[in-house]
Order: sequence, then structure tokens, then C-alpha cells
Amino acid sequence: MTSSTFTIGVDLGGTNLRIGAYSQDSGLLDTIPLATRLADGRDAVTADMCNAIRQLLGRYAPQRRLAGIAIGSPGPLELPEGVLRRPPNLPGWDGFPLRRTVEGALGRPVLVQNDANVAAFAECLLGRGKMLGVDSLCMFTLGTGVGGGIILRGKIWDGVTGMGGEVGHLNIWTEGGMPCGCGSQGCLEPHASATGVRKMADAMIARGTAPGLEALRAANPAFSAREVAELAADGDTDAQAIYQSVGRSLGIGLASLVNTLNLPLYVLGGGVAKAWDIFSPALFEQLTQRSYIYRLTSGTTHVTPSVLGPDAGLLGACLLPFTTAISGSQSV
Amino acid sequence: MTSSTFTIGVDLGGTNLRIGAYSQDSGLLDTIPLATRLADGRDAVTADMCNAIRQLLGRYAPQRRLAGIAIGSPGPLELPEGVLRRPPNLPGWDGFPLRRTVEGALGRPVLVQNDANVAAFAECLLGRGKMLGVDSLCMFTLGTGVGGGIILRGKIWDGVTGMGGEVGHLNIWTEGGMPCGCGSQGCLEPHASATGVRKMADAMIARGTAPGLEALRAANPAFSAREVAELAADGDTDAQAIYQSVGRSLGIGLASLVNTLNLPLYVLGGGVAKAWDIFSPALFEQLTQRSYIYRLTSGTTHVTPSVLGPDAGLLGACLLPFTTAISGSQSV
Repeated sequence: MTSSTFTIGVDLGGTNLRIGAYSQDSGLLDTIPLATRLADGRDAVTADMCNAIRQLLGRYAPQRRLAGIAIGSPGPLELPEGVLRRPPNLPGWDGFPLRRTVEGALGRPVLVQNDANVAAFAECLLGRGKMLGVDSLCMFTLGTGVGGGIILRGKIWDGVTGMGGEVGHLNIWTEGGMPCGCGSQGCLEPHASATGVRKMADAMIARGTAPGLEALRAANPAFSAREVAELAADGDTDAQAIYQSVGRSLGIGLASLVNTLNLPLYVLGGGVAKAWDIFSPALFEQLTQRSYIYRLTSGTTHVTPSVLGPDAGLLGACLLPFTTAISGSQSV
Repeated sequence: MTSSTFTIGVDLGGTNLRIGAYSQDSGLLDTIPLATRLADGRDAVTADMCNAIRQLLGRYAPQRRLAGIAIGSPGPLELPEGVLRRPPNLPGWDGFPLRRTVEGALGRPVLVQNDANVAAFAECLLGRGKMLGVDSLCMFTLGTGVGGGIILRGKIWDGVTGMGGEVGHLNIWTEGGMPCGCGSQGCLEPHASATGVRKMADAMIARGTAPGLEALRAANPAFSAREVAELAADGDTDAQAIYQSVGRSLGIGLASLVNTLNLPLYVLGGGVAKAWDIFSPALFEQLTQRSYIYRLTSGTTHVTPSVLGPDAGLLGACLLPFTTAISGSQSV
């Protein structure tokens, strides 16, 4: 019997660590979900990762040919070397040679990519890109922070040192914007992330003019962007104003990107993107006003929510070994 | 005797029309400089262009093989079709099928590209890109407006409909910025173009607090960005403040691009870029403050003035036929 190929992908997050086996004919064959043992240090986390990879190799290598192993990791990363540079979500990992470490432990080649880039890659090949029949897109991942990934002609554009695609650090509110974890202020991230939504809600509550949000905090002090979205959907105008602000910030950032890159597709994923119906009118208002290229190409420029959901990162890592020339050091 | 190949390039501007013959071994073989007879209409301009092309064909086709003909044209353009869309610098040309018209007149295939894109292409292959040994860059052309071109791995990235690279319409001053010809406000163009410099000078004069600029206008009512730069170089603090503002706007725009694209090189060309020494400190201050990727990669991220000067557009058009896959419809 001829065996088909499979890949192993890793979705390394600050909270969860998932390892999957994937084949192009069957999709995800298997998933091993683990917690990321950050408190035990990076050696413990990479040991967990390698053990799970070995389990999947033991399970599938007898029947199928391994096409490769890839890890989607929080950044900033130097690529293709796969060395972390002060990653905010992996404290203590600065300078850690993730790729070399895992390759050494497994005795096999491993690819490393930015987690938002692999999610964008999956969205392009299996999600909204496939649905619309396009092979270039920019994806915004609106979660705790705002990540991003750019796919050009079916390949990840990660820049010359692997740090491209950081659309969360597009400049939006040049003056008077909220401080950003990157050291700047007014970036998209503090204005369109779940963290930003919570901060905007806290600021409104502090001003004493948002009774609905105040009641939400009294009932649930740990409330998040999701509860603010639910409140907005129930008609609370203060919660709606927060998401309208998110939409404006996204529209301003998108206008800069549309004018610069003229891509056919911009996809919004992550938890905050679930409030699409609430924030998208403000997004399109700003985008239309600020991008003449959007106005000229509105029929061919799509801005939509993502379709893949939380599996995008794992799927993207699994897809990487099937492609060639995906890293910054290679030709697009 | 084996003949080498040659190309014909056209640099179509709102004022000047230049047609050149080029070979890779000898560079520019010949240049025909004409005025762009805009007042006589687009048919007159394209007739002038085609006549000059025929002259060069008559002169060089007997000895060398023609590798192709390409036109660098003001945008917006739909590419690869080469149809103009409300071009601000070619009034009356909206909807004009430039490529088809010239192909019909010559009976030969012709490539059409955006003028700022071909200038960026030349700067990459023959200018600063070649000097630094990199094959990706973004070029800003700071002239009457602010044009731009993006080269990725040696190929023009002009987006899906040919309108990519418009860095003049990066959002810089979201609130309180100057109105832009594109219909938005606060774009890079009104804050970093020669037109913008003149407007800033006029505003300062109107406030009555800029004696040096006032004297300049009294002596030369048609003064331009160049004279403001000379005044700044002579120590006039008001003129210096204008260029510091240009530098800040450029630095803010560059920060968004560095974070998004992580290119190895950003080149500033056009007349305003000659004031590099005056505006670049403010540029680097903003870029360093607003881009953590620049701070992480400052050794591999170069921001420099261009080296080719006003020939860049013509050279870029001449180079286009030597490459493959340069248009938005083809794979990068």
C-alpha cells in the first residue's frame, strides 16, 4: 500500500500548547492539547512539546511519510533561525534558540514561524482566502494583543528578519493615543485588542458615566472584551461606543494598508473579531473615507471576519512543511 | 556578429515626456526629451510618445534585438491593463487605456507600470539596493506629491489591481492633519511633499512670526520647497521647523511600514529628499520611538536618500522588460 504524507504542527501559546498531526487528504489526524508550563521554564515547555511530537511520530510514521515539522510561536522571532527576541507572552525566553533546541532534541529539521503568520497562512489556504479564491491577504488577530500576518501569492511575507506583519503596531492615534507595550503610543494594539477594550471600559467606569459597564463590573470584576460585546449587543450605548472606537481604529489602520499593499483580502480573527456586527460599520466608514484605493477597488478589496477560528494557528503550522520558500531568507 | 538586446523605456510625466533606449551592457544608449503636450490632449501625447519610440526602433533595431517596451506612467493605474483612473497629474485621462492605445499604434506589446514603482525598481537594481546588496525596498518619491513603490525580492509589488505602494497615503496625523488630495486628511503627502512644505511656509507667514520666510516670499513670490530648504540650511529656525515637521511625518510613516513589512531598505528620493540633512534627525527620532522592530533590527534596516536622481523613472521603465513576473497579475 502506498502511504500518503503527513506533517506535525505545533501551536505554542502563552497558555496553551497544542501539537497536531495533519494530512492533506484527511486534515487534522490527531491533536494533543497541553498547558504551556511557563512557570517551569522554557526547557520544560520544549520537553513537553518534543514528547508530544514523538508520540505523534510513533503513531503515524509507520503508515505515512513525514513531510516535516513546524512550530508557530509567539514573536518577535528572528527567522528562519527561530530565535526569540524579548517575547512579551513568553517571559524569560529572550534569545532562546527555539528552532535549534527542538531540532537538537528530535534529531530532525524543524521550521519555526510567527504564530500570527501561520494563522494567516491557514486562513489563506483553507479559510476565507480559499472561499474567495485569492492567494494574498493580511490577517489581523485581535486577541490579548493584536497580531498580524501577510500572505503574498500564497507565501508568508515575514520580512528580512522574520518580523514582518506586525499590523498591531501600525500607527493610528499619533497624538493622544493609548500607550502600547511596544514602547510607542497610539498603535492599533491598545485600541483594538481585548486588553484595550477592557481598558476603555475601565476608563468609562472611572468617569462615572457608564451605568451598564459599572453594573457589569460589579457583577463580574474580571469581565472581558466578550462581556462588553454582549452588553453592546443588548443595546448599551457605552459598550457600543467602545466597539465603535475599535472599528474606527481598525478602519484607519486598514486604510494605510490598503493604500500601501492593495491586497484583495483583509481578514479579522481572534476573540474581539466576534463583535464584527457591532464594530464593522465604524470600520468601513473610516476605511472608505481614508482610502481612495478602497473606494476605487471596493469590488475587489474584501474585509471580512475569519472563518477558521482557534484552530487557525495549529492548522497553519501543519501546512507549513507542505510549502516551499516560506521563510524570509528565501525568495518569494 | 551577435547582437545584444535593448529595451525602450518611457517616463511619462505631467510636464516632461522622456523616451530612452537601454542595453544592459551600455546603459542608456539614447534619450529623447519632450514636453508633455497635456493641453493638446492625450492623443497628441501618445502620438509624440509613439513617434519617439519609432525613432529609437529605427536607430537600434537593425543592430540589436528588442527585448521590450515599457512605460512608467502617473497613477492611479489598473495593472497590468494599464488603464488610468482619475490621475491627478494627467487631467482628462480618466479611463484612458494607455497600454492598449500604444500597443495599437505600434503593433507591438507594451508594458505599463506606475512611475513611482519603476523608479523604486531602478533604485533597487541599479541604485541604493545594489549598493547595499538587497533585493527588497520601499521608495518614497517626495516631489509635488508623495509617490511610492515597493520591491519585494527583486520584483515590483503593485498589488492585485496595480495600485499598491501608495505610501503617500499612509495615515500620519489622524486628527488635525492637513487635507489630502485623495479626499482624506493627515496623509503623508500633504505633510512631506514640496506642496506641503510651501503650504506650511505660507501658514507660518500668515501667522506673522516667520521673518525669514516672509522676506523669502517678498523676494520670490513663487518660492518652493527648495528655497525653504536653503533658508533652513542658512540657519533660519522657522524654515528648519518646517523640515523637522517633514521629518517627523516621514518617521511616523516609516514606523508603520517597518512594523508591517520589515524590509531591509527604505529609500527617500525626489526634490524634498535633498533636504535630508535637515529633516533626517527628526525622522530617526520618530522611527526609533515608534518602531520596536526598527530598534531590534537597526543594523539591518536602512533608511537612506536615493542615489539615482531624476533618471530613476526612465531607467526603471527601461529595466522592466528584462524581468519577468513584474505585474500584479503574475506570481511574485
